[in-house]
Order: sequence, then structure tokens, then C-alpha cells
Amino acid sequence: MEKDLSIYNTLSRKKELFVPINPPFVGLYVCGPTVYSDVHLGNCRTFISFDMIYRYLMHLGYKVRYVRNITDAGHLEGDRDEGDDKFAKKAKLEQVEPMEIVQKYTVGFHDVMKAFNALAPSIEPTATGHICEQIEMIKEIMAKGYAYETNGTVYFDVEKYNQSFPYGQLTNRKLEELLEGTRELNGQDEKKGRLDFALWIKAKPETLMKWPSPWGWGFPGWHIECSAMSSKYLGNTFDIHGGGMDLQATHHTNEIAQSQACNHAAPVKYWMHTNMLTVNGVRMSKSAGNGFLPGELFTGSHPLLEKGYSPMSVRFFMMQTHYRSTLDFSNEALQASEKGYARLMNALKTLENLKPSGNTSTSNIKDLEKKCYEAMNDDFNTSVLIAHLFEGVRIINSVNDGKESLSAEDHQLLKKLMNDFIIDVMGLLKEEESGKQTEVIKGLVGLVLDIRHKAKQNKDFGTSDEIRDRLIQSGVQVKDGKEGTSWSLN
Amino acid sequence: MEKDLSIYNTLSRKKELFVPINPPFVGLYVCGPTVYSDVHLGNCRTFISFDMIYRYLMHLGYKVRYVRNITDAGHLEGDRDEGDDKFAKKAKLEQVEPMEIVQKYTVGFHDVMKAFNALAPSIEPTATGHICEQIEMIKEIMAKGYAYETNGTVYFDVEKYNQSFPYGQLTNRKLEELLEGTRELNGQDEKKGRLDFALWIKAKPETLMKWPSPWGWGFPGWHIECSAMSSKYLGNTFDIHGGGMDLQATHHTNEIAQSQACNHAAPVKYWMHTNMLTVNGVRMSKSAGNGFLPGELFTGSHPLLEKGYSPMSVRFFMMQTHYRSTLDFSNEALQASEKGYARLMNALKTLENLKPSGNTSTSNIKDLEKKCYEAMNDDFNTSVLIAHLFEGVRIINSVNDGKESLSAEDHQLLKKLMNDFIIDVMGLLKEEESGKQTEVIKGLVGLVLDIRHKAKQNKDFGTSDEIRDRLIQSGVQVKDGKEGTSWSLN
Repeated sequence: MEKDLSIYNTLSRKKELFVPINPPFVGLYVCGPTVYSDVHLGNCRTFISFDMIYRYLMHLGYKVRYVRNITDAGHLEGDRDEGDDKFAKKAKLEQVEPMEIVQKYTVGFHDVMKAFNALAPSIEPTATGHICEQIEMIKEIMAKGYAYETNGTVYFDVEKYNQSFPYGQLTNRKLEELLEGTRELNGQDEKKGRLDFALWIKAKPETLMKWPSPWGWGFPGWHIECSAMSSKYLGNTFDIHGGGMDLQATHHTNEIAQSQACNHAAPVKYWMHTNMLTVNGVRMSKSAGNGFLPGELFTGSHPLLEKGYSPMSVRFFMMQTHYRSTLDFSNEALQASEKGYARLMNALKTLENLKPSGNTSTSNIKDLEKKCYEAMNDDFNTSVLIAHLFEGVRIINSVNDGKESLSAEDHQLLKKLMNDFIIDVMGLLKEEESGKQTEVIKGLVGLVLDIRHKAKQNKDFGTSDEIRDRLIQSGVQVKDGKEGTSWSLN
Repeated sequence: MEKDLSIYNTLSRKKELFVPINPPFVGLYVCGPTVYSDVHLGNCRTFISFDMIYRYLMHLGYKVRYVRNITDAGHLEGDRDEGDDKFAKKAKLEQVEPMEIVQKYTVGFHDVMKAFNALAPSIEPTATGHICEQIEMIKEIMAKGYAYETNGTVYFDVEKYNQSFPYGQLTNRKLEELLEGTRELNGQDEKKGRLDFALWIKAKPETLMKWPSPWGWGFPGWHIECSAMSSKYLGNTFDIHGGGMDLQATHHTNEIAQSQACNHAAPVKYWMHTNMLTVNGVRMSKSAGNGFLPGELFTGSHPLLEKGYSPMSVRFFMMQTHYRSTLDFSNEALQASEKGYARLMNALKTLENLKPSGNTSTSNIKDLEKKCYEAMNDDFNTSVLIAHLFEGVRIINSVNDGKESLSAEDHQLLKKLMNDFIIDVMGLLKEEESGKQTEVIKGLVGLVLDIRHKAKQNKDFGTSDEIRDRLIQSGVQVKDGKEGTSWSLN
């Protein structure tokens, strides 16, 4: 087992050798979805990337506790405490209780993750399920002097924090630069500093989701939930924290500040971020009208899509690009991936029935295996991994055609490595057989109808009638019309 | 739409006309699973029964908020606060954090519910997600004088409560009788009264799942969670509370006491309880060794099962018995249900292609519809409903055979009522088509191979070779051997 894994750490802006804090255990936290609408494809890419990372870490023998939260409260429309609560707004719109919104989109999210064959995380904590923990953490941050209450709302004091710890470390920015980018406070503001953010927000009379606290009824800020839940389940300092790169500048920066202020320890050893999606080169966004949902991608029901793409071919498509690179969706690229995925799966099937064909091997399988591990150990480079796996496909097909040979030992090794990396690590599955079966049925019925047509031409009506009866027995209804023969399954 | 729905109310021990508190809204609460192990079949029966009830209420036009909780903390082994916490015990056994146990069995539970085609409830709250609400409720009960703290644990004072409100109402028992059934307190007891139960339990040093409270670190009692969550999402008095009948005597009795003490109002208008399971006449239980799990039932991997039974045939089997009757599992009964389910589904398919066949109908469809509603309105009697639906099956088959006729209007009505009651109300689904497709392929390949065999006999090798090539194109590999021709799918 190769363990020279390097991970690109956003914090240091370079690849670092992965050394877990407490091996063989690895703590992995990923910011999960805000369940007030259907999950975005960009989020799916993040979760599928970390599913692959989770799988590879387990493949390397680590005992991984993978925590991915559900944000079901406290996420305001603006990252810096402005605007309405996303759940309350949607609940008003759909005229239901906010937790009905949460349930609807949590169920939908799980369905999509299952379609993509993403493993369930070890723990999936919810923000509303950890109000006590968040309150305790806020109390501790206040006790340490890094937060203050104004009128029922508690703010984190960024400038005071910055005197002891560097704020903005994660994106390599100084406080002065960050301050330049924010608006001046005016007399009405409750905050002391322009970068201060809310840990606890006072409920308005119309607020639906609220809890009692030492500062009155209110609800937690968005950033505190991840700090409270990650430290509860993974400890004050854990190995890997992941998320989309759009979370770096505010959400993750504030998570670091909260945990440092509370525990006087850096919460995370390796920060990992996935890159954004584009569609035909343009950044995917709702407002640009190019933000299709997973369901639309599967069925092809978005105007930008020529056809539907199966969850597994989309997963394979995502794996073809390294998680830190921009991923561009286009029909051409998706169709190419569909073919690539099919080639890979066909090779796996060929491999199942392949027999070792000689005492020596014409290809170096040991070397191929080494290259696969090297690719994955280089910051989970599935893109390079796939190139090596296609070399495996080439070898399989050549051996199958009798053009190359494999020793029994290499045959076993090739089988193991192809299955390990395709099924276990990349999480690709053989797709449901029913689509394929439909194709087989189409081919067979076409053949039978051609034979029947010939029999009719030869005035052999005994045969043509017999064929018709046997088709009905098999569950195929035949209809002869002016434009030819049509058929359907019973 | 018929609305003369009667519901058997455990509280009054008779059927009552269903009059919602605030029509068209209906609040429905069902005690969900304790997710520390695989869900029992008995629980499945309860949830499938209430899924049918939920569906029928919606079919009648009610806007139902269906809340089913997840018990993920506080459930001790004994109903009356004795023994270990079930999660902590299992976590110790599996050497993981308790929330990993919760996640594992929650995911498993959802998978089973999906297999049974049970709709997700509107809200699925967790006990750990409502610690604040439970603490607030306990504080209120103490303020009203019905609970007391001893050494960090808070007990409900049953005898004091009984002075103002009747305890034991739900099972029609007097306090004196109940007291007789419990053991004497001794000097070490923290409780004042023998029937007193814990609302909040003080954490021991080794307790893993604990939260801060006004009484120190601890965790909520099992009964308070349902009172807190039901009132949060459905109000202090709501329409229907359901669960297995084993919950009546303690859990539901205590829920009533807690809510009455807190709000001085009866929490629930209609209490509904599902009956138990037996296997070949013996009560199903783990210790009797006859407690098979849903997965074992589907695959047939339990020694008492002759074969596997599909989720839909099991669901149909459950629907054949009224929810308040004992349901007895036996291979004979399950196999009979499998056939009954297939007959029902075949009739639905025949109905799709059936054409109205006359100006008059030979059967009274309007009357059949009336009988179906009467059955369901009689406390959701699916057992009687199914008998009427089989009369529908008889009519469909007779019309299809040309022995009876249906007017266009009756044809539409029959179509609607069969689909309404089978698909929408009973929640039965057409099972996966893939098994069926396999049958079609078998039939077609058999036909093609017979034709090829004949061509060979006639020395028409051109045709036989062409057939072979076309089969390969269609994905069918043919192998001619001494014992005849075998084939396989690519």
C-alpha cells in the first residue's frame, strides 16, 4: 500500500505530504448543502470529489470519520448577515413550516447523492440539531474576549482577533486589504467593526425559526454551525476540511477565526477546495440561465442539453478533470465521457472472462499499478489516473484479441487494480441493466420481424402466423399497419 | 368525495367520526424508529399502515402535515429509565461515536421505507435536534408544579398529576391498579413515587451523549422528545397521534401526562395504534428467533422463509389485514399474497388497454366505488377494500374476455377507482421491470433459435448464419455445443 499521499493545502498554497494527526484515524469535514432548494450541480461536484477522496483514504487503509453537515437554519441570503433567512423566505413562498422545506430538499439531496453513487458520510449533523453546542461555543468565544453582544445579537470582533491571530490567512490577505473591500459603517450599525460577523442573531417578531439563548430568542449565524459541529465530532484540531472554493474568503475564514478564538488552536491541518463549474466556457449560475440541475442533466430537459446523460457517465465526466480545475460542461465533452465510461465498463466485463495467456506478460502491470498510485497520491489526480486506466483497457483488449499475453500473476494484479480504482476509488458502478436490456429487445424484435416479413413474401403464412403467436407469448404485441409493422411490450 | 371517515380512537375505545380540528388541515404524528439497529418488521408494519392512512387522508383532500420522528438519543433499554442508553451501548460495541450509529441505521431505515414505497413524512425531526425545546418544556412542567429535580435528574410527579388529571386514561386504568404493578421504592431511589418517570437524566462521567441544562449536564428522557416535537410542529392539540400498540401503556400515557401538565390541554384528539406481528401464530420477537428483518424477508435468507418476497408483495400482504388486527406471517400466506398482488397488477395492465364495449354496463361500477369508500371510511379497512377491488378485477377480466360490457362512463370510473385505491391509497407500485424484460428476452431468443434450427435442418445455412450475426449485433452470444445451443447476454 502506497502512502506517500500529497494534498494541496489552501492554507499553505502548496502540496504537502499528508500526515494524519492520529493515524490510522482521519477526520474529514465537508460543508454540506443548504437545503432550501434543489442541490446545485456545483455542490454535487464538490460532494462527488470528496466522496472520491473519502474512498481513496479508506482504500489506503485509513479509518476515516467523514462528517458532512446539513445547513437547515441560519443561512441568510448575504454571506455577511444581510437579507432574509433562506428557509423562512422559501417557507413563506411555499406556505409551509420551514422544517417542511428542510425535509423536502434533504430527501431530494439524498436521492441525487444516491444516483451519483456517493457513499453516505459517517455523520450528517444538522445546524438545528446543534443549537446547544453553538450557544456553548459562542459563550466561550465571548469569555475569551473575541465577541460582544449588541441588543440581543452577538458579533465576532474581527479587529480584536486580528491583534492575536492573523485573520484572512486562508486567502492570504491582510486585514487592511479586506477592510478596503467593505462598506463604511453608519450610525445605525450594531457592529463595532466593518468585518465583524454575527455568531447569534436576535429574532424579529416575524422570525419563524428561533431558539432561547442567554441573549434572548434568536438563531445562530451560518459560520458558527460548522465550527461547533466539526469540533464536536472531530475534535478541536482535525485533519481535513473541504468545501467549494467560493467558501474560502468568508465562511471558512470565519470558521478558522471562531475556532482559534474559542480553543486557541488551528482547527484544521489541511484545507481542500474544489473548483467551479462552467458551461461552454461561461461560469454556471442561475442568473446566467445556464445552471441546470442534476435531474435536468439526467433527463436532458434543459435547453442547453442535447440529450440526457446517465449519473454514472456524469460522475466519470467529473473524474476526468482534477478537482482543483474548472470543470466545463458541454454536450461534446459529456458525450465523449459517455463513450469513455462505456469503454471502461466493457473492459471490466472483458476482464472478468479473460484468461491468463502465457508464462510471461507483454506489458508491465506492476509499473501500471505504480503509476495509478502515483496519480492518486499526487493530490488525488483522477484525470491522470484515468489515462493510466485506459492503458489498462488497451492491454485487456489486446490480450482478449490474442495480440498480447499476461502471466497468471499479472492477470490477477490487473484485475485487482482495475476494480480497485474504477469501482472502489472512483465510485463508478455498472449502470442499471434495464436500459441495455431494452436495446437487446429492440435488436431481437427487429430480427424476428425481418424473418416474418421474409416468410410473408414467400407466402409462408404458417411461419409468419407462428412467429406472431410466439411474439405474443413472449410479451411482444405486434401491429401491422400501412406504414409497416409496429410493436410494443405488454 | 366521501368524507364520512370513522377512526377507532384508543382513548374512547370506539370508532368516532373524524372531525379535524382545523380543516382542511390535519396534523398527524407517528412515533418513529429508534435508530440503534436495523428496523424491525413490526415497526415497518406501523409505518406502512400510517403511510396508507396519510395517503388516504390526502386522497380525501385534507392537507396533512405528517411528522414522524427519529429517536437518536435518550432511549434507555428499560421503558422506565433503567438500563443503558441504547446508542451508547451500541457505540461501545461497534467502537464508534454514537452519532455514527445513528447515521448508519437512519440511512438503512430510509432505504427500507423507500423499498416499501412509503412516502417521506412532511417533517422528520430528531430527538437530538430538539434538546432546547425539550428543556423548555421540562422547565414549564416544573413551573406548573408537576415535576421535581433530584440530584440533577428531573422526574415527572405522576401522583400529583393524577390529582388533577386522570393518568392511565389511554389504557383505561386507574392509578391504583398501575401502582400495584410496580416495585416498591427503596431508600436509594431518587423518585418520590413509584410511577414517576425521568424528563431529564443526569449524565454519568462515562455518558457520551449529553447536553448542558439548568440541571447540569444530562440528556432528555425518551417520552419528553415526542411531546416537545409534536407540539412544536403540530401545536398543543392536534388531530391524530399514532404508533405501535406496545407504546400505549407507558410512552403514550406519559406523552399525554407531559402535555396536559405543560399546556393544560389534551394533546391529541384521535389516538391510533397498530397491532403486533406473529410468525406461524407465535408472537414475533428477537428472543424467539422468529424475528426476521425486512432484508431477510426480501431475500428469503431467514431459516423460517422458504423464499424471498418482494417489497410490494409484502406491502400488499400487510394491506390484506386490518391495521388493528394481528398480522401473521407464514410462507403460505405470503405466497398467496404474491399471487394476489400479481393478479391485481395484471388487471391494472389489462385495464389500460381495455376499451368501453357497449352503451350499458353489466356491472354496477358506481356501487363498487361506493363500497370501496365505505371500506376505507370504516377505520381504513384495507382488508375489505381489497375484497372489493378483486370484484373490480373480475369485471375487468370479464369485459376483456367479451363476457361483460362497460359503458364509456363506467369504464372511466373503473379506471379511476382502481388506480386511486391501488396506487395512490394503498401505495402499491408496479415492481421493477427488469425481471420482466429478462423474460421477454428469453422468449425472443428461444423463438429466434428455433427458427435458426429449422433453417439449419433445411440446409439453409445462409439464413442460419445471418441469424447468428444479427444475434451478436443485438448483444446475444450463441454457443453451439453437443447438448444443443446455449446463449448469454454480452
